[in-house]
Formats: sequence, C-alpha cells, structure tokens
Amino acid sequence: MPRFRMTVEYDGSAYVGWQRQENGHSVQSALEQSILALTGKTISIRGAGRTDSGVHAMGQVIHADLERAWEPHKLRNALNAHLAMANEAVSVLEVQAVDETFDARFSALRRHYLYRIMTRPARLALEAKRAWWVPKLLDHEAMHAAAQELVGHHDFTTFRSVHCQAKNPVRTLDRLDVSRTGDLIEIRASAQSFLHNQIRSFAGTLKLAGEGKMTPADVRAALEARNRSACGPVAPPEGLFFLQVDYPGDPERQP
Amino acid sequence: MPRFRMTVEYDGSAYVGWQRQENGHSVQSALEQSILALTGKTISIRGAGRTDSGVHAMGQVIHADLERAWEPHKLRNALNAHLAMANEAVSVLEVQAVDETFDARFSALRRHYLYRIMTRPARLALEAKRAWWVPKLLDHEAMHAAAQELVGHHDFTTFRSVHCQAKNPVRTLDRLDVSRTGDLIEIRASAQSFLHNQIRSFAGTLKLAGEGKMTPADVRAALEARNRSACGPVAPPEGLFFLQVDYPGDPERQP
Repeated sequence: MPRFRMTVEYDGSAYVGWQRQENGHSVQSALEQSILALTGKTISIRGAGRTDSGVHAMGQVIHADLERAWEPHKLRNALNAHLAMANEAVSVLEVQAVDETFDARFSALRRHYLYRIMTRPARLALEAKRAWWVPKLLDHEAMHAAAQELVGHHDFTTFRSVHCQAKNPVRTLDRLDVSRTGDLIEIRASAQSFLHNQIRSFAGTLKLAGEGKMTPADVRAALEARNRSACGPVAPPEGLFFLQVDYPGDPERQP
Repeated sequence: MPRFRMTVEYDGSAYVGWQRQENGHSVQSALEQSILALTGKTISIRGAGRTDSGVHAMGQVIHADLERAWEPHKLRNALNAHLAMANEAVSVLEVQAVDETFDARFSALRRHYLYRIMTRPARLALEAKRAWWVPKLLDHEAMHAAAQELVGHHDFTTFRSVHCQAKNPVRTLDRLDVSRTGDLIEIRASAQSFLHNQIRSFAGTLKLAGEGKMTPADVRAALEARNRSACGPVAPPEGLFFLQVDYPGDPERQP
C-alpha cells in the first residue's frame, strides 16, 4: 500500500494530547477521522512523538498507509478540507510519498522542540495558551549555563515522568540552548529521542536556575542523583512546541 | 480624581469588539467590570481606538478616573487579578498616573497597527485567529509599491466602511509598509487617526496588488475615485493588531 509521510501543525489546547485515547479527543483521532472521511477506511497512523494535552506542534511527522497512490498536494488539500469542516485545530502542512521502510517514529534521526517562557509582570492575553507565564525576570544566561550541564549522554531518570514507559532512561541530548528576545525566553532542545516530560522537566529546573535558586553545579547534582525528586517543578504544557523531525536523506534545515 | 493611563493587550476573538454594546461582551466591559470589582464603582473608560470583533491589541491605551491615588503597579496587578478570575483574554500591561489633560483618544499623536497575512497552501492551526490565511503566494514587493500610492494626505472615502461615523474622510497616512518573512506578510500602518475599516480595506486591496490583479496606478485610481465600490474586499479582522499609541512627551519607541 502506498505510504505517505505528513508534516502536521496543531494547537494542542483543545486536545487530550497526540495519542488516541478513551477519555477525549486527540490529535491522532482528528487526523484518522479526516482520513476516514476522505477514504472510507479506518486506519491507524503513527506519529514521531507523543505530545501531552496542551502541547503544540509546528512539525509533528506521521506516516499513513493508504490504498490509493494520491498526488501528495491533493491528499494534503483534501485532508485539510475535512479538518476544516470538522473545525479541528490541526493542519497538514506537507505530504510526501515515501517507501515502506520509512517509519515516522523509528526512522527519526533527531527531534527538535522549543519551550517558550514569557517573563513580565502582566498576565498573558494573546500568548495565554502559547507560553508559560513567569511574572518575574529570569537570568537567561544563568539558565543557559545550567543547561549545558545536561547536554550529552546521560541517565535522565531525574528528568522523566514517573509514568514514562521507556525501558532505558539513558539518552543523548544534543542541544539545550536558552536565549532571550525582550520578554520571551526560548529553550531549544534537540535529541534523537526524549523521555516523557523530559523537556518540561528541564524547563522547570532551568527556571530555578534563572531565579538564582540553582547553580550549574546544583543542576549537575540533580542529574547525577538519578532521582525524580531532585527535579524542579515540571513546567506547564502550553509553552512546549514540537518543531521538527529529521530523517535520513532530508535536506539540511534549521529548526 | 486621579487619572490613570493604561496600556492593554487583548485577544479579540472572544469579544464583540472594543466598545461596550448591548449584544455581547466587549473588551471595554471586561475592563470596566474589573474596575467595578476592585473599586465598587461603575465608571466609563475611554480607549484610543475602537477595534472590531476579532481584532487584537498589543498596545490599546485607555484612561480611567479613579477615586483613589493607586500606586500604578498595584493597580495593574489588582486589575489583572480580577481579569484572571473572570477568565478574560485581556491584560493590563502598564499603568501610569497622568494629569487630567491626558485623554487616551484626543491626546493621541499617532496610532500604529499591524496586519498579518499567512500565505501557504495549508490551513492555519496555531495562527488560525491571529492572521488572514491566503492559500497562495503574494508578491509583497508589488504590495509595498501599491501601498506607497496611499501614503500622504488624502480623502480616503474608498477605504472606509459605509458605517464609518467620522465627519471628515480626509486623513494623513504616515506609513504603509509591506514586508515578508517566510510565509508571513506584515503590513504596518501609522497615522494620527484612521477611519473605520481603513486598514482592513487597505489589506484587502493590497492583496489584489500582490496577486497581480491591481497595479499601483489602479490603487491610485481607486483612491481618487473616492467611492467605496472601488475598494477590494475588506480583509478579515483576525489579521489586525493594534500595536501602539504615541502621546506628547512619550520616549521614542519603535512600534
């Protein structure tokens, strides 16, 4: 059956998360229902990452096996028409025909995420569901320095949810950069794969570094503790954006 | 009575517009209700500009006369606490004590607006209520060239709503710049004051210029026709953001 790779954008505010589940509407369900509406077939799609409720995506990647060899841009437009009719906050940005060796989850070489923090005294109106509001200044240079203690090949037990289902807590974190533009602090994280809640755990801990409550050495000690209780409070989902996934043969892109 | 100048941000999606009216909840009502909750007094505030339903603001300015000489940051925090409790998409960014000669509407020297257009084949998810979706490429240089025909002192009858209540359709447009970053086209407009629907009328007409359907000479002819029917379709409200208002004595700021 023809396999298609799709790049998907969504506003996670209205969904129980990426993954199909019993207790509410998921992004995966929204996409599978648009495929059902178009093709008459109930299929299961696979995404590169499982985002939690409230987490957004600009570049989630999925694969789907369809019976027909659609022209990619026609498939994109038809699925978007069904998503629009169903009033979903989901958009198919791009469709490519791929061979059956492509797997959105298992072929991924690297995943890129962005975590946004707005630091200002006034509550958020326009950015309310698109950033974490922190009503005080944070020292983004201290956050960046602390973040560098986390980059590399480590056991990240401290920074994963107790519900994380991964067998192995060891990951290689390629990038964890913190920068500031005005009131906005951006944390950019890249790795082949992440543990459940890993980036939100990083963001919560780096906020403490930005407040002067943790030094880089404290963050290193928290990592080395391999103990969930050493982690700062987990940052809320609305600041997190799944930006991009890289696969073999992709042209070079800056996330 | 002590007078306060306040800078206000809002997501216009949930409101019938800036102005208090019978048929729904307005941004003005949300702010007046937060003042009532805080002070026990029903007062009427005045804004620098009346935005339509769906139009956003990052820098609407209002003035309000209160009985008490609040410390500005305490007033800001208290109003934001009431706005949060009422679940309003409104935030008071800044409060300043001003003297009674300050009038948010009549003292304004210049108003600055931004109109955002997203040009891409796929529908909008994250930006759905924050930009006008145009599913084809637009030539932003052609749009900018056409826009320059509108800058200056003109009778803007072509570019105002038939419901516009201004007695005089003559205005001086100081700036109408069109630029592009990736899929996003930004139109930046500055003037002491604007007519009703003027910027959305500009945006709708400039889109035609970006499609090659109007030359700069056509836009000039539309202006000179002084006839509403010469205007392109009015662009939707969700692309429009009220950015900033300048008053005498303000420090120089880039909108």
